[in-house]
Amino acid sequence: MSYNGARYHGYQIQNNAESIQQTVESAIKTLMGEAVTINGCSRTDTGVHAKEFVFNFKTENNIPCSGFVKGMNALLPTDIAILSCEEAEEGFHARFDSKGKEYLYRINCADVRDVFAENLALHYPYKLDYEKMRSAARLLCGTHDFAAFCKAEAKEHLVTTIRTVYSVEIKENGGYTEVYVSGDGFLHNMVRIIVGTLIYISEGKRTEQDIVNALETGDRELAGKTVAPCGLYLNKVFY
Amino acid sequence: MSYNGARYHGYQIQNNAESIQQTVESAIKTLMGEAVTINGCSRTDTGVHAKEFVFNFKTENNIPCSGFVKGMNALLPTDIAILSCEEAEEGFHARFDSKGKEYLYRINCADVRDVFAENLALHYPYKLDYEKMRSAARLLCGTHDFAAFCKAEAKEHLVTTIRTVYSVEIKENGGYTEVYVSGDGFLHNMVRIIVGTLIYISEGKRTEQDIVNALETGDRELAGKTVAPCGLYLNKVFY
Repeated sequence: MSYNGARYHGYQIQNNAESIQQTVESAIKTLMGEAVTINGCSRTDTGVHAKEFVFNFKTENNIPCSGFVKGMNALLPTDIAILSCEEAEEGFHARFDSKGKEYLYRINCADVRDVFAENLALHYPYKLDYEKMRSAARLLCGTHDFAAFCKAEAKEHLVTTIRTVYSVEIKENGGYTEVYVSGDGFLHNMVRIIVGTLIYISEGKRTEQDIVNALETGDRELAGKTVAPCGLYLNKVFY
Repeated sequence: MSYNGARYHGYQIQNNAESIQQTVESAIKTLMGEAVTINGCSRTDTGVHAKEFVFNFKTENNIPCSGFVKGMNALLPTDIAILSCEEAEEGFHARFDSKGKEYLYRINCADVRDVFAENLALHYPYKLDYEKMRSAARLLCGTHDFAAFCKAEAKEHLVTTIRTVYSVEIKENGGYTEVYVSGDGFLHNMVRIIVGTLIYISEGKRTEQDIVNALETGDRELAGKTVAPCGLYLNKVFY
């Protein structure tokens, strides 16, 4: 599915707040008369979007896949859409079976806000130095301890903060700066801190040596700030 | 300025409904302490957008143009943005001095709705026949009586329904079909009826001969339906 996360309190179900998961499960209940729990490939935060989000669930219902897509899209609010559906093998799990993901972060560098992209990009009305950002981005690729690129409270529950970043690409697209980050897995806020760090590199507030030291020491202060969730999209999931 | 017209009852000021004009005039009053009436280049309908809308007003205030842009953007809601400002010659009128305009109509032809373009395009989940549409579009270019391409009630008040269409271009852009129509002036709903007619041409519901006859007779029934306002953008104004 794809979703515009602007008005949701993230993917994961919670009390007293509208979530993507709860909205989808409720539509499935209406369509198929079955209360199911869906397994999502990721837990996106409040305001974060998904261009391609994979989930799975087990059902006894024999509704055809095409009927599921059409029925769900008629029932879901217009900011969530089922893109496709297929039968999975017994035991498939959208999150545990994923081999990696690609995130996209969109930045509007124009002087004036884009009235057609409200809540869909970070408005940063300054010029970015792509050369400096690309050079620094290379240091992040590979297998590292990304503790310095993780929300502090999230670290406690983790077995390891070692992750592999496959690539960090910076592209210009229709006046927008797009940062694509792909890897085998991501810590909480990792992409938003990576983008914030690359912006600090562009501004001269951090150096490449700071990134090297951040990866070595795990010191959050050596990385940049956590940029706003509105620019972040889960773009692809690999299996 | 540019604006996302989704939540407005059109450009023009009216009682008991939120309009672009009233919102802008109210921000000017707050910024400059002066009650002014702005002259807009066009009167877009409910739900119609503008990428580039020109307006002018007369003031005794000597606020610099750059201050006007920044001040207004801080005061206006996020779905309206002032793009630039310059001093005009005495007597300039954004509407009467315009030499023409270009409108853009955006169509999403993908099977599934685009969750990031709610109220920003027509969702038409079928394949369009560009060749047939382009061939028919050529018949609309030039100076014609466009009475068949005008909202019925709007015709009564007009001196003439003759207009000159400079060009009709059909482009593919990132999965969207974009129809650009430029001309010296437009009748009420004219672009939306032109696009609806080109869709009917693609579907085989109208022929090129129907267009020739529509231009000759002014018979609204020979043209296509009026497509939804959400896909329409005032794109450029010529002076």
